Amino acid sequence: MPQISQRGTEMPSSPIRKLAPLAAQAKKEGVKVYHLNIGQPDLPTPQQALDALKDIDRKTLEYSPSEGYPFLREKLAAYYHKVGLKDITENDIIVTSGGSEALLFAFFSCMNPGDEMIMVEPGYANYISFAATAGVKVVSITSKIEDGFALPSMEAFEQAITPRTKAILLCNPNNPTGYVYSAAELEQLRQLVLKYDLYLIADEVYREFTYGAEPSISAMSLGIPENVILVDSVSKRYSECGIRIGMLVTHNRQVYQTVMKFAQARLSPPLLGQIVAAASIEGTEAYSKECYEEYKARRDFFIKGLNEIPGVFSPMPNGAFYTVANLPVEDAEDFCKWCLTDFRLDGETFMVAPAAGFYRHPEMGRHQVRMAYVLKKEDLARCLVLLREALKAYNAR
Amino acid sequence: MPQISQRGTEMPSSPIRKLAPLAAQAKKEGVKVYHLNIGQPDLPTPQQALDALKDIDRKTLEYSPSEGYPFLREKLAAYYHKVGLKDITENDIIVTSGGSEALLFAFFSCMNPGDEMIMVEPGYANYISFAATAGVKVVSITSKIEDGFALPSMEAFEQAITPRTKAILLCNPNNPTGYVYSAAELEQLRQLVLKYDLYLIADEVYREFTYGAEPSISAMSLGIPENVILVDSVSKRYSECGIRIGMLVTHNRQVYQTVMKFAQARLSPPLLGQIVAAASIEGTEAYSKECYEEYKARRDFFIKGLNEIPGVFSPMPNGAFYTVANLPVEDAEDFCKWCLTDFRLDGETFMVAPAAGFYRHPEMGRHQVRMAYVLKKEDLARCLVLLREALKAYNAR
Repeated sequence: MPQISQRGTEMPSSPIRKLAPLAAQAKKEGVKVYHLNIGQPDLPTPQQALDALKDIDRKTLEYSPSEGYPFLREKLAAYYHKVGLKDITENDIIVTSGGSEALLFAFFSCMNPGDEMIMVEPGYANYISFAATAGVKVVSITSKIEDGFALPSMEAFEQAITPRTKAILLCNPNNPTGYVYSAAELEQLRQLVLKYDLYLIADEVYREFTYGAEPSISAMSLGIPENVILVDSVSKRYSECGIRIGMLVTHNRQVYQTVMKFAQARLSPPLLGQIVAAASIEGTEAYSKECYEEYKARRDFFIKGLNEIPGVFSPMPNGAFYTVANLPVEDAEDFCKWCLTDFRLDGETFMVAPAAGFYRHPEMGRHQVRMAYVLKKEDLARCLVLLREALKAYNAR
Repeated sequence: MPQISQRGTEMPSSPIRKLAPLAAQAKKEGVKVYHLNIGQPDLPTPQQALDALKDIDRKTLEYSPSEGYPFLREKLAAYYHKVGLKDITENDIIVTSGGSEALLFAFFSCMNPGDEMIMVEPGYANYISFAATAGVKVVSITSKIEDGFALPSMEAFEQAITPRTKAILLCNPNNPTGYVYSAAELEQLRQLVLKYDLYLIADEVYREFTYGAEPSISAMSLGIPENVILVDSVSKRYSECGIRIGMLVTHNRQVYQTVMKFAQARLSPPLLGQIVAAASIEGTEAYSKECYEEYKARRDFFIKGLNEIPGVFSPMPNGAFYTVANLPVEDAEDFCKWCLTDFRLDGETFMVAPAAGFYRHPEMGRHQVRMAYVLKKEDLARCLVLLREALKAYNAR
């Protein structure tokens, strides 16, 4: 039997989906499982986007242009103008199969196997998977829960930079911590990127979801157009994760043209998703405001509730819809599994993601879990009860 | 300004889409361009699949399982049973974003950077791009137009095998040549694969389209379940290229589980495409027969017409909807460009793909072009007139 590739062997399993079989088993036994483990918003997709599907009047569902349809790229450019990124035109945008493909294209185009990319940990676990796919070495700098997961010091970054460092990857607002980087932090990164001639790959898919006094600042506004590659997606913004429409945006023409070669090889992004995405952008201001208010209320309620549970600590996240919290347990992964296999309260339990998988140094996340507050308030309230009781029972075993 | 990656620099541009800007320019000037360059079927998508879109009654367009929805995988398994592949179950199938992603996942999972994969040239150009993405070295063995592009000898394969050889990639029915490999040829490959413990990656997306006496034989029926990875797609079968639904099928559990890690990292295949694909599979026998008859009639008509043009030679392809033909020109790429920039007959011209891009040894394809007979008969007739006149004018310059 021929052998599996080394990169295939080294690919980490998704920490978000890893415990899924245990959840499936619990459900088979009739247990209700509340999912706080995955960033799958429960809010509806905008009605006008759903209507656009019913209005499709094509006879042949044909390939679209590799860079995506102009009708979508033009709408996206208009959206960027509205959020203050006035330099972005449709010719800077390549539509991808989700933000995932945009990340892969960026890695493939900017880095050679063996090159290094610096990211902040805890970080989105799939960055590590995509880096493994591209043969890129991830160098992680740890942000600390006691600092609210703020950007680590520039000294920490400079110490991590080697001649093989090619890029810094920043998720802002951050998944999994919900941290929103400040203007001062971004200015530091700008200087660093220029000093060492690095790419700044900025994942800003949670742009709309910032709850603090300061809005989230785009890397595209830092005045370093040759360095920045923006990764974006309509998934979370319009609650349409399943249509797989993301985008890569850059003013760097060489990067753009290189990404286009990867985009042409896979022929085209999903046609139907492009139609839905295009129908989601204009006229959804009220929808977006409603979603925003809903997430903000959930955050306020959920984080407060978390911190009221003895031994639990969560910083107040200012963005996205995640938080990384400390639990009073020795091994959070064991606790998460136990909740799925053993803990039941009136036939119910809950699923959260052990945070270790979001670290390159898994021991840093040993006591932590990531939770996505993508459930309605009553369900979040129930989850808080379940968590409190589960911790009590787990520690009393 | 930071540098582009080496793999990005080495990625070939798509030979199919490379001349697209010249075609766009011609159209801007009001010229009608017939597209024989791309395998974009003009036939309609099944009506029941289009209806399924209008019937979607979901409030949230959410992520699907990383391996694809059971409702689609079960229908696909039933389809495979119908075409005689009775061992395939839904648990052997991973739904991908087009056949393209299935190829990438297979390459990532089975081969390390620097490993070698043998393919027959001329071959589908994007195989070379996907191999470059994965850092895999493509070793090409030339099939010859004078042999009708039959499988090269086993001696040629054995000579190409080195300790780094990990896989043979076979496209059957073949894109770009339309060749359908015989039972005897596949038996030779089976023995070779076993002898050297190789993967056999079989791209069979044109399975339905075979016009000769013998049907196309699947690699999945060769009795080497641990070696075979099947790449498939609904794109051509149901004229729905734009929905981006392909699949990777294998009985090799280790490969399956490794591919799943790549599939989980990118979260999920397109939800809407899965709904359309699932609605295309059952009850479309009459549709498929009609498509088949249409392509067969086109093939008969078009290939006969090609061979009637002085100096043009095309073998009779027994599958898919492409042919690679010899033209009486010194440099087919120059001719293809000239047709777009200079040649006009009553305000019309045509676009074909220079075949050089389908070879690792481009000089082998210097006089050849690939043509897709994906236009209706009247248009193909017109293309034959245009080609005849263009060759006359080009060679008389």
